[in-house]
Amino acid sequence: MKFKYTYILLLSVASSISFAASDVVEIKANLEGLKLPEKYKDWRVISASHRVDNESIRIILGNDIAIKASRSNQTNPWPDGAILGKLVFKQTAEKNWPTAIAPDEFVHAEFMYKDSEKFKDNGTGWGWARWLGKSQIPYGDENDLNQSCITCHTPVKGRDWVYTTPVKLP
Amino acid sequence: MKFKYTYILLLSVASSISFAASDVVEIKANLEGLKLPEKYKDWRVISASHRVDNESIRIILGNDIAIKASRSNQTNPWPDGAILGKLVFKQTAEKNWPTAIAPDEFVHAEFMYKDSEKFKDNGTGWGWARWLGKSQIPYGDENDLNQSCITCHTPVKGRDWVYTTPVKLP
Repeated sequence: MKFKYTYILLLSVASSISFAASDVVEIKANLEGLKLPEKYKDWRVISASHRVDNESIRIILGNDIAIKASRSNQTNPWPDGAILGKLVFKQTAEKNWPTAIAPDEFVHAEFMYKDSEKFKDNGTGWGWARWLGKSQIPYGDENDLNQSCITCHTPVKGRDWVYTTPVKLP
Repeated sequence: MKFKYTYILLLSVASSISFAASDVVEIKANLEGLKLPEKYKDWRVISASHRVDNESIRIILGNDIAIKASRSNQTNPWPDGAILGKLVFKQTAEKNWPTAIAPDEFVHAEFMYKDSEKFKDNGTGWGWARWLGKSQIPYGDENDLNQSCITCHTPVKGRDWVYTTPVKLP
């Protein structure tokens, strides 16, 4: 009888631990070892855009180093340590103002990490990463780790590989 | 001679003071006494939108109380103390990706201040204010202090007077 109660108690504790563990969703690093930046949701805003070609709204954020650089026009090149984040959403028309196109479902978050030494070998001085969907699954396989990012950004090589122009505030 | 040097010294000091004062641009409160919130440029982002009807890009920010409310879906009503800020820019096509519509010149910043007691009399529980252009001139005259704001927002009275739906992040 004592054994039975101990067994139930242990099962119950194990179940609680398992429940607690399942609350913490582990977000994997990408194949290159780049991690989703902590607290990127609290970063300040650099710009926003509406991609009418693929019907998405994008909000571009920066870590503290990126914000300082963007506000002092030190963005060509961006300083080492700067990280730019782009939050991508499907677009929708605001129900109460249909000519306002606004974010709908979250699609992915993508990041550029400036480190001219660490990322010298890919020719850009930036690390490139994307996490897909609400589950934030790292994007990219061994055949195309970040080449598709770099190919797409090649037209802005002369802007230190960055499309976004930071907004100018008063 | 001594008088002359003192006079030159005083002129020089006065000129320095005048120069220093002109560096600090005073931003006036609006007619209702509402002030441009300090450090709104460092607030976190709530959403963004593209108004295709007037060719503008908008970035919507919130103070800490607003961000906490938006992330916990406590937005109908928004809590007292919440301030929403909307930064409005003329739109432009990204030079290197013309189907990306992005912010160009800054147009104005507008704010909604939730205080259900203080702003009871205007029927909304919000204070309304806008500062125009890079000089941040308060908008509104005695004949139409905030009635145009309220009229325009009346279709979303049932959403506590707010058009913006906060983005849902992972």
